[in-house]
Amino acid sequence: MRAVRRKPGPILVPAGFAFAALSAGIKASGRPDVALARSIGSMASSVFTRNRVVAAPIEIGRASLKKTRGRVDAVLVNSGNANCATGAAGLFACASSCKALGNLLGISETHIFPSSTGIIGVPLPSDKIIACLPTLIASLRGTREAVTRFADAILTTDTRRKIASRRLRVKGRTVTLLGVAKGSGMIHPQMATMLVYLFTDLSASPKELNRLLREVADETFNRISVDGDTSTNDTVALVASGESGVNAGGAREPFRRALFDVCESLAEQIVTDGEGVNHVIELSIEQARRSADALEIARTIAHSPLVKTAWAGSDPNWGRILAAIGRSGVPINPNKVNIFIGDQRVCRNGSSCAFDVHRAHRALRKPQCEIRVQLGAGTSRIRFLTTDLTAEYVSINADYST
Amino acid sequence: MRAVRRKPGPILVPAGFAFAALSAGIKASGRPDVALARSIGSMASSVFTRNRVVAAPIEIGRASLKKTRGRVDAVLVNSGNANCATGAAGLFACASSCKALGNLLGISETHIFPSSTGIIGVPLPSDKIIACLPTLIASLRGTREAVTRFADAILTTDTRRKIASRRLRVKGRTVTLLGVAKGSGMIHPQMATMLVYLFTDLSASPKELNRLLREVADETFNRISVDGDTSTNDTVALVASGESGVNAGGAREPFRRALFDVCESLAEQIVTDGEGVNHVIELSIEQARRSADALEIARTIAHSPLVKTAWAGSDPNWGRILAAIGRSGVPINPNKVNIFIGDQRVCRNGSSCAFDVHRAHRALRKPQCEIRVQLGAGTSRIRFLTTDLTAEYVSINADYST
Repeated sequence: MRAVRRKPGPILVPAGFAFAALSAGIKASGRPDVALARSIGSMASSVFTRNRVVAAPIEIGRASLKKTRGRVDAVLVNSGNANCATGAAGLFACASSCKALGNLLGISETHIFPSSTGIIGVPLPSDKIIACLPTLIASLRGTREAVTRFADAILTTDTRRKIASRRLRVKGRTVTLLGVAKGSGMIHPQMATMLVYLFTDLSASPKELNRLLREVADETFNRISVDGDTSTNDTVALVASGESGVNAGGAREPFRRALFDVCESLAEQIVTDGEGVNHVIELSIEQARRSADALEIARTIAHSPLVKTAWAGSDPNWGRILAAIGRSGVPINPNKVNIFIGDQRVCRNGSSCAFDVHRAHRALRKPQCEIRVQLGAGTSRIRFLTTDLTAEYVSINADYST
Repeated sequence: MRAVRRKPGPILVPAGFAFAALSAGIKASGRPDVALARSIGSMASSVFTRNRVVAAPIEIGRASLKKTRGRVDAVLVNSGNANCATGAAGLFACASSCKALGNLLGISETHIFPSSTGIIGVPLPSDKIIACLPTLIASLRGTREAVTRFADAILTTDTRRKIASRRLRVKGRTVTLLGVAKGSGMIHPQMATMLVYLFTDLSASPKELNRLLREVADETFNRISVDGDTSTNDTVALVASGESGVNAGGAREPFRRALFDVCESLAEQIVTDGEGVNHVIELSIEQARRSADALEIARTIAHSPLVKTAWAGSDPNWGRILAAIGRSGVPINPNKVNIFIGDQRVCRNGSSCAFDVHRAHRALRKPQCEIRVQLGAGTSRIRFLTTDLTAEYVSINADYST
């Protein structure tokens, strides 16, 4: 069985980028909570949450990207406050942070890409961010240490920083791709945001970046789920400095593979770092008529509380999986469904079949387990990463002090 | 604030029905597990699960109802085994039980309406059912005690029997409606079935019964949710003996109201009896453009693990509710959304507003609490009953012995 985890690789810093982070006092813990990534003349593309309730930085970042046609010279992130459901004051707080940073860097505020993650519905103390900007700018470095500081400062209740990178050679030149993420589905109240920043020195137009990013995000970040709750702040951004001198046109496929590897590694890091998660489940949905069907079935299984609690108890309860497949809305023939847990078939043609219950139980007790579903309807297949639903998840998310 | 619970009323037995139950040895506990309701020449209509994986009795019951155009002379239910994912052997087991009962009663097997609830994927021991049929038939009675025996024998992990009834006077005559149900969303592994039988002495055609049943089921059973998992065996049946001599044509509205009351009471009894449930939440979604929008938003809130775990901790965490509304897929304007917990507004125009956190916490600590959402988009409104998601739920559903 294939291991779930894709290697993150060493930290590689793409040419043309510098990073910095510090504590501005937004987090009560005093941990770093403001991060800055700087480049000059980069082009970018971004994918945002599909939630109709969106945070202020998403409204502003989306508008700026549109206005500048993808120009991004700085990424400014704060953690500890989502700046969501904060009304006009929230938009103003985000805009004034960007304006202050633009003034200090001598660039247009529309070239700044803002992000926030943290609690919803609390005013963002933008004065704290603005006050720390000069120090932040002064500490910008293009080093690995600066990358780890950036990666740490965007975390909320994550237990580990999340970094992945890849390097590729194109016609004697080197292209570097660095990904930094935060997020864990099962996290502190109101902090379910996933933020992903992908920095590269490839030279590419926003249109090319957009095509690559959407394709790869669909196959990676859109195929994971911890609790099925989509955040109001989810953001994935791909920023390209062009400093490698390599044009996207001549490196599309190798770069796409590198981008996939980095995104897949970050997606896996996000799922495995979910608070309360004891088991990561790799769902393989096979023999679907089309991949959209397979994805819908994977999501229905991944969001079923009855299935997820069975996994928490390492219970090879295939009846619940079959029932979830049946209610997914996808037209299936139950009599053609096979289900495998680990290396054993546990359901054959929609009915029970002989299998070693103890072996299935042992497979599910491992930190990660593959569950394979064959639909007998076609040739499409997808892979989807998800988790169990534990009593610890409930405790973490119920015990918010009031 | 309106109390959630609708009074079940005293047990009233409609004319033309007799009931019986006993232990056939399907349940390991030895508790009653076979139930029979008998009438002569009744017409019926039924609503079944929308799950594409359906149990054998649903396939057979649906085919018989179609063939006989709604004629039902007996309802035969077993608990302890769902007879689902049991293949051809499962269909045979169900058919032979019906055939044996038909022979003993001197009626066609197609006039028997079969149901099963219990574990999925285990062969149904139909020989045990068939062996007890003569005793079962001999003990048929039209008494309240017989009704309670019937109601007890269809339970699985429910902690309470579920009965509701109403009587109405139409032009000097009496029409009686009796409803018996089983189900609790958070229940023993693989036993998430909801079964509801509605018996009346009204005289009505299957077409009239069908219209009434669909209308009322949509407003009651389709507006509750515990864990969002649709069973493979869900069944709601309305059986009319005609013995009151009152025709549906002249009593449509009062009967509809009585049917609504009985179904609403049973729906509430099912939600409040969910294992692991500490809090019942009454969602009122108001000012929607259309009621389908309101229902979709209610379902998204009711299925959000982050929202449900907050309720478990009595946490007035309106940001999670707002985020769930935003990801429901319904086009809404976040700036027009108001959220109320108990008697207090906690979110105004999509942003935070001043409220007494302790009072909101106290409201949520009660066994039942109303949460009201105003969308500012129209005039449609619906009410939806759901529950919190507790660590106890996880334990109950994870600890299935393997």
